[in-house]
Amino acid sequence: MNGDAGRKRQNTIKQLRDLLGERLQTSPSDLDLHGRNETHFPPMPPDAVAYPKSTDEVSQIMRICSAQGCPVIAWGTGTSLEGHALALHGGVTLDMSRMNRVIEINAEDMDVRVQPGLTREELDTELRASGLFFPIDPGANASLGGMAATRASGTTAVRYGTMRDNVLGLTVVLADGQIIRTGTRARKSSAGYDLTALFVGSEGTLGVITELTLRLHGRPEAVSAAICAFDDIDAAVNSVIATIQSGIPMARIEFVDEATAKAFNIYAKADMPIKPHLLLEFHGSASAVAEQAEQVGEICTDLGGHDFQWSARPEDRRRLWDMRHKAYYAALALQPGATAVVTDICVPISKLAQAVSETRADIAASGIPGPILGHVGDGNFHAVLLISPGDRKAEEAALQLAHRMAKRALALGGTVTGEHGIGMGKRAYMAEEHGAGWDVMGSIKTALDPQNILNPGKMLR
Amino acid sequence: MNGDAGRKRQNTIKQLRDLLGERLQTSPSDLDLHGRNETHFPPMPPDAVAYPKSTDEVSQIMRICSAQGCPVIAWGTGTSLEGHALALHGGVTLDMSRMNRVIEINAEDMDVRVQPGLTREELDTELRASGLFFPIDPGANASLGGMAATRASGTTAVRYGTMRDNVLGLTVVLADGQIIRTGTRARKSSAGYDLTALFVGSEGTLGVITELTLRLHGRPEAVSAAICAFDDIDAAVNSVIATIQSGIPMARIEFVDEATAKAFNIYAKADMPIKPHLLLEFHGSASAVAEQAEQVGEICTDLGGHDFQWSARPEDRRRLWDMRHKAYYAALALQPGATAVVTDICVPISKLAQAVSETRADIAASGIPGPILGHVGDGNFHAVLLISPGDRKAEEAALQLAHRMAKRALALGGTVTGEHGIGMGKRAYMAEEHGAGWDVMGSIKTALDPQNILNPGKMLR
Repeated sequence: MNGDAGRKRQNTIKQLRDLLGERLQTSPSDLDLHGRNETHFPPMPPDAVAYPKSTDEVSQIMRICSAQGCPVIAWGTGTSLEGHALALHGGVTLDMSRMNRVIEINAEDMDVRVQPGLTREELDTELRASGLFFPIDPGANASLGGMAATRASGTTAVRYGTMRDNVLGLTVVLADGQIIRTGTRARKSSAGYDLTALFVGSEGTLGVITELTLRLHGRPEAVSAAICAFDDIDAAVNSVIATIQSGIPMARIEFVDEATAKAFNIYAKADMPIKPHLLLEFHGSASAVAEQAEQVGEICTDLGGHDFQWSARPEDRRRLWDMRHKAYYAALALQPGATAVVTDICVPISKLAQAVSETRADIAASGIPGPILGHVGDGNFHAVLLISPGDRKAEEAALQLAHRMAKRALALGGTVTGEHGIGMGKRAYMAEEHGAGWDVMGSIKTALDPQNILNPGKMLR
Repeated sequence: MNGDAGRKRQNTIKQLRDLLGERLQTSPSDLDLHGRNETHFPPMPPDAVAYPKSTDEVSQIMRICSAQGCPVIAWGTGTSLEGHALALHGGVTLDMSRMNRVIEINAEDMDVRVQPGLTREELDTELRASGLFFPIDPGANASLGGMAATRASGTTAVRYGTMRDNVLGLTVVLADGQIIRTGTRARKSSAGYDLTALFVGSEGTLGVITELTLRLHGRPEAVSAAICAFDDIDAAVNSVIATIQSGIPMARIEFVDEATAKAFNIYAKADMPIKPHLLLEFHGSASAVAEQAEQVGEICTDLGGHDFQWSARPEDRRRLWDMRHKAYYAALALQPGATAVVTDICVPISKLAQAVSETRADIAASGIPGPILGHVGDGNFHAVLLISPGDRKAEEAALQLAHRMAKRALALGGTVTGEHGIGMGKRAYMAEEHGAGWDVMGSIKTALDPQNILNPGKMLR
């Protein structure tokens, strides 16, 4: 940064400090913490970290930063896997952790208004007494604002959809500090452009989300979980296809490969055969859940599965999904001290067996450890490519593997990211995935943020 | 239009005729047909009607019209209820009826690629052998392009969502003739702004949809329908709320009032008591469907319903839903020769009983016949306000009723349109429903269509 720009930035920080007092931090520990990420990107700290407490305060911050042309990056829990919240061009990181309240639960309408810093586990706790739940469950205990910004999903998308389907409305502060409210409390609307859907997945590049209205679901009367081993991936994937096509309303249908089974055995003290598995969950009435489990058990067994086991015991279920949610950390533990390149492709389900098989062969040939697991009901899977920090050769090999996976997804009619988002990590594929559509995104960005101060350097050209 | 503008328009038409030959029409009958609508708006014919056959042809048409600043209005079946496809500023209407093919059914991936002029009933016929179906069912036999453009829904949205949830991707021709493809064939993606969601519901103001990839669903193993009478609206609506909250996966849950029951008796030779009713449908396995019907029967009976009858016989079901789909025409038949102002508000379900009761009282006091019916699982209902053509006083009274309904929806946290769209009819409420969000829509419109040639005069400021 040259002298003039540096002075301007210091002036911005001074104005923000006047507004926020000690909730504007420039301490090395604050900057360091907000310059880190959970995967392989190098640290990129901001110039300052602001801790706003209200929508109005975010609006005032945006007015100041907009007048000074200062970048603003919204920060939830920092669990993005694509470097979304790194301060590529410095500026001010808005840490939303002090806006973490449940504002209002509307049990009758099955919706809830929350602030963006609330995490999904905190929301789950708050909803416990209501008989309702919010289904979206990325591996991390992410913030709901961050989940909306990256259009996150998780293990239940096959039944309940993604953040795209479960955000009813938003309060957003625009680049110039203007506050807008998208959506209504009605369940559906045909009134104009779907601004809610535009901001969901916009990765902080069009506005800062300061409030969310989320759709809730009734807790099912009964829940049961099941697990089934397979001798090969094709059999597992074919079982998934047959199950989905038969119209059985699966709540979860997750795939893990041999390497992931091994990681679970070590990290979570599980006792799984070192084979590909499907992990399943059923929601419904007690009799419906039993019937569904039986039907799926038959499908899996017919197609080569064995040891199909199901359980309605809550403690068995909890252990299973707790293990699944920690899969990323279990994979990391396979190689002590490792970091990872995490992939996230999603393909039409008819191409899933091919995509997984080719990826496994590619990983095996590379010598990089890379457990594969995924939300196969959606056609979405991840490889966790393990590398030792500082091992440039391994990192390069992992990035090349990830590159070939992305190209494979595009060749099969899929997407380079099912749920992690673009951030810094996937920008190189936007032109190929979207063609001229990427320019349309750029036109929208320019119309709403002409100075490019909202999370610059991410997603767009 | 002044002389210069008129000559320019004639020049545009000449260029289009050179491109399209006899598929560019200016005959009075063509212009007249494409200047009409199904509700109360006066005729507004275009200057010419084009019948494109391909995406490339639409692109060439847009290049010509863009160079000449000529308005372009996409036309599906003309069944919009808000004057969407009227040529308010003249120009060229693109009649998409010759782009009505199913391009590809992917049974394994449960999706289908179609051209926009295909109607929902034609698609239903094409899918019959596949074991799959497309659930969205507005009353009219609308085109799928038109349904996407207005974010349509119908009786099954409570289970399967609206067009928002069932369009996986689009091919769109932009104002300057550029062709983009949104979405992929993957079931979900976090790759950039959700352009699919932006174009769905954009009412032809951002681009012309020339191809759609739609999500299909497995035909349920068993289907049963039910009907239940109530003595008052509150009891019916409370039954709906209790049913939804209990997590019973309703496929359809529709409300009709006494006046609609009477219309059904006359128009469809039904034999319903002149009372409010719920019409219901259940999808699932044979045992699940029976269990659900029993549970809902108990809920309705507990809350004051009577004569709960259910049937798994296909012919009973078909008769019921055929009657429901023709409700608009049945209502019109209550007053021979009538036209109608059709309302479409959607409110949080906790406000539904209040919204319906107040609306009924308001209609009763007005003296205008106005049957009420709706997709109450979504909080969405319609009043069909009957007026004799030329009766200005009745028309004014009906429009005032509709105005008060719209205001009521907004006051209750709802939307002025659940599924019909804005078009010309609801523009006056956009500022109140969206506040500064309406300006954001305007910025996006200006960025993508700076000349305002795509369906000008609709939805936006």
